This record gives sequence, structure tokens and C-alpha cells, in this order.
Amino acid sequence: MRHRFVALCLGAVLSPVRAEEAKTPVPPTMAEVLASTSTSDWRVPDPDNTVYLDLEGGRVVIELAPAFAPAHAANIRQLARQKYWDGLTIVRVQENYVVQWGDPNAGEDGAARDLGEAKRRLPAEFAVPADAVSFTRLPDGDVYAPQVGWSAGFPVARDGADGKAWLAHCYAAVGAGRDNAADSSNGSELYVVTGHSPRHLDRNITLVGRVLLGMDVLGALPRGTGAMGFYERAEQRVPIKSIRLVADLPESERLPLQVMRTDTRTFERLVESRRNRHEDWFIVPVGKIELCNVPIPVRLVP
Amino acid sequence: MRHRFVALCLGAVLSPVRAEEAKTPVPPTMAEVLASTSTSDWRVPDPDNTVYLDLEGGRVVIELAPAFAPAHAANIRQLARQKYWDGLTIVRVQENYVVQWGDPNAGEDGAARDLGEAKRRLPAEFAVPADAVSFTRLPDGDVYAPQVGWSAGFPVARDGADGKAWLAHCYAAVGAGRDNAADSSNGSELYVVTGHSPRHLDRNITLVGRVLLGMDVLGALPRGTGAMGFYERAEQRVPIKSIRLVADLPESERLPLQVMRTDTRTFERLVESRRNRHEDWFIVPVGKIELCNVPIPVRLVP
Repeated sequence: MRHRFVALCLGAVLSPVRAEEAKTPVPPTMAEVLASTSTSDWRVPDPDNTVYLDLEGGRVVIELAPAFAPAHAANIRQLARQKYWDGLTIVRVQENYVVQWGDPNAGEDGAARDLGEAKRRLPAEFAVPADAVSFTRLPDGDVYAPQVGWSAGFPVARDGADGKAWLAHCYAAVGAGRDNAADSSNGSELYVVTGHSPRHLDRNITLVGRVLLGMDVLGALPRGTGAMGFYERAEQRVPIKSIRLVADLPESERLPLQVMRTDTRTFERLVESRRNRHEDWFIVPVGKIELCNVPIPVRLVP
Repeated sequence: MRHRFVALCLGAVLSPVRAEEAKTPVPPTMAEVLASTSTSDWRVPDPDNTVYLDLEGGRVVIELAPAFAPAHAANIRQLARQKYWDGLTIVRVQENYVVQWGDPNAGEDGAARDLGEAKRRLPAEFAVPADAVSFTRLPDGDVYAPQVGWSAGFPVARDGADGKAWLAHCYAAVGAGRDNAADSSNGSELYVVTGHSPRHLDRNITLVGRVLLGMDVLGALPRGTGAMGFYERAEQRVPIKSIRLVADLPESERLPLQVMRTDTRTFERLVESRRNRHEDWFIVPVGKIELCNVPIPVRLVP
């Protein structure tokens, strides 16, 4: 009966009997796609755009997206170099929404941590010209945007009418908190999407990147019991051991991380394996998939 | 700067200046809708279809959906009456997917807990005739199904072509684990969706209801480190104190819970308030919403 639990997620490999019955080519399973990748299907994230957030509970690896948020990416690099976040805290964990960190005293004269050489205020980076970034389209449509797909490993949305493209608020997206003014963020306060993707935030706030590894570390943090998931008492906040730019670390301290490219035939096959699930457990392959339900595989290759 | 954090979710009340500028009626905010409800906008869940799952960390309230899964609902009632789950455990917590509980020894001769008078195997209850259930439609489309909306408080999908309706795998949906055979579930092993809604499971497994309260209790459980989020060692499993049908509890032990009806003008206004966010913080109201992003408010009315 343990099998019953196991079956909910991934079934066994493709059944040859079913393939024969169908008399047509059956799409591969994700396991089959992963087993048949070549080196060129993977990329090593740029150390200058990769950040380690280290907590007591483990490491979170974030990839920045300078093609979409260059000013925020630069400020985040600067803040990491200054060790700005070390000893600050996760201040908010709201169920089905976000984990958020920064300086709880930010904005309070005298009490706030100095931003050093980082900028205090940055322009909103909500969207970019669509023709400035690559785009691999998902064919299945989207409730929130005319087109969705991927750009260099990030889930994105596009609008042909206004010629814009933007990072999508999928699960694991990382953004920069702001006040009511569009240009009031600076990247010192960051949030990660942890629940059902809040796509209504798209084009309303600057996304700066995406968590590649460690969502389990963030997802299991104690929920804040204050309004909107803020921790009510200072001692409830979760300390940040450090946030570092990988480029600032010696080679020996870098994880051998690789991310599947999103502009390849292999990724297309992976998407197809998730649009039509052919593991034995599945009965009705739906033939479609939401952007935010497509996994982007990551592997450690020591 | 604390304001910056706060602003990410809910802004202040509607600005009269903006309303005046627009010269057209501005939809209400969700806070405004909630502040103006009447008694008839709320319903008390049927005690015979409401279940309390009590863990060390708190209570989870589940509403069963007998209109969609009558056989499973009946078996779950029977199992609760037998106190079948008391002392069993949560066996699986997979990030961005499910929390799942039951008997880790189920199916093993001699080691499994007796199912008593409950049925061992139930028919698949993946979908029902669409005309057998009520339906309030969401106008914004859906990637996975031709139509989506709500039926008596549950997010549902429909297909006009085959005349079926089914519960949707939104965040907080509760389902019955099964083996590869469609009719291999019995409701003794249940899962709750905790991440981005895995809608590809729709029509592949029997959903039995939905969590009304306590998703924060489930969401913060330690992630299982085994394959697919199973706890690797027995001592990691999270004990279930009890699972009870509310109808079996004295009035004094029942929570005074009310759920917003989904077939009212008030709910329609609430949906509109989420399709077009007019809190001051928002800059671009998107004008659409995904089914699984629409909250169904719950309140305690002592």
C-alpha cells in the first residue's frame, strides 16, 4: 500500500504494452527525458548572477535576471559584496504567498542598517522590450498574459500589443519589495513566491530572479502570525547567516550546479512530457500545462 | 520602510482621488466587500461533511464534497467514527506539492490497521454529470479546462463537450491517494495540495473536499527528505492526534465557522475585487484571475 502513496507523483517507466496498444508514438516521461540529456542541454549559471542565501536550515540558491532587472541585479551584487544582509532576518512568512527578508528597521532614522555604496532607490523594472530578450513559447495559453514561455531559463510573459516582456510571478520567483511608489525598491528587501503563483503581481513590482535550489528550506519556515505573515516578535525572525554573490567566493566554495537550458529540443521534450503525462499512474493526460507548473530541472555535477 | 513590506499584499482603502480621476465606478477592494457582507452571504458548513484533523501544531478543518465524491465522503465519515486515523501519521510532505497521511503499513498483511466497517475499495469519483451540480462561472478562462468556477463553495472545472464537472486541484484541495488502478482508493489515505495547483491531477484521482482553515499548520511541516517528500524514518512522521467528523462532536466542541457562499452577488463582487486590484499599492490591475487564485473567505463568528 506504500505503493499507493508513491504512485501519486511519478509512476514507473513507460509501459511497452500501452505504447503498442496506442499504435502511435507516445511522448516520453520526464524521467526518460532526464535520462537522455547531453552536456549541451545544461548550463552553468553565471557566478556574477548567482547568490547564496544561507540560513540555519540550509542554503537557498538564487539566479539573478539582469536582462530584466539590470539596476536591481547590480544593487543586489553591491549589497552582497558589502555583506549587507548578514545578521539581518527573514521578517515575513505568509502561507501560500511569500517569504520576505531585509532590515526590520529599514527607513527608521538611526536604526536602519547603512546601505553603503548601494543605491537607495531604483527605477521600476517591471517589463522590458520584448525584442530585447530571447523567448521560447509555451503553446498552451495563459489566463494572465497573451503569451508565456521562457527566456534564458526564466518563466516570462509577453504582450504582442505593447511589445513588452516580463518575468512571471511563478512559484520560486524572487522580487524586490517596494512602497506604493513604483520606483521605491532598491533590492535590499527581497521576497520569494512560495505558494500558488500570484501572477496578478506581474508588472506591478520588480522581479529580480528565481530560486534554483532550496525552496524546501524556505517553504518549511514557521509562518508569521502577524498581519500578512509578519513575525510579531523580533525573536521569531529567522536569522540570515549570510548572502553572498558566487563570483565573490573561491571556486572551492561554489556548488557544481547546472540548470537545464530552456531553449533546446530537450527542454521542448520535457515540456511535452509534462503536458501529456504517460507514467502508468496517469489515466487522462490533459495535453496542456500552465507556465508555472513546468519544472526547470537543476542538477549537481561534482 | 516597514510600510514597504506591508504594501506588498494589501494596500489601504480605495483612494477617493483616484476614483474621481477615473470618472467611472471603481470596483471595490476585497476589504470593502468583506466589510459590507450580510448574514445571507455566509453559510455554515454541514457538520456531517466537516472534519477536524488535529495535529500538535494545530487544527485543520476540511469540508467534504459529497456532491462530487459521495462514496469517498461516506467512507471518510465511517473511518472518522471508528477513530481510524488517531495515532497514525503524516507520512509525506513534499515541497510545492502535497501533505499526505494514512497508515504507513497499509497493505501489509498483519501490520496494517484494520479498516473496520469501512470499504476497502471504492469506485473512482473523478467527475460527475455537469447538470447534477450547481455552477457559478468565472469568466476568465483556464489553461486546463473549457470552463471553471464554483459549485457550492468548491472550485470546479467543466467540459461542455462531455457534460462533466469535477473538483479542481487548487491549493487546499483534499484528495484520496490511490494505486495505479482508478478504483483503488478508499479515503483512508488523504493528501492536501500545498503548492502551485497541480491541475494535471484533475480527473486522474478522486478529490474529496477542501481545507477551510489551517493550511498554515500543514504548510510549515518539515519536508520529507525521501523520494517525493516521504519521511525517511518512522520517527520523522508527524503524529495525528485525531480526526473527527464534526457531527460526532458535542456542540460545545464545534468551531463557529462560516464560509462565504460562492453563488451570490457578494461573491461576484469579491471576485471582481481580485480581478482588478484597486488597492493603492497596485499599478496595473490585470483584469483577470486564475480560478485557484480566488480566495474563498472563512470567518469565525462566536
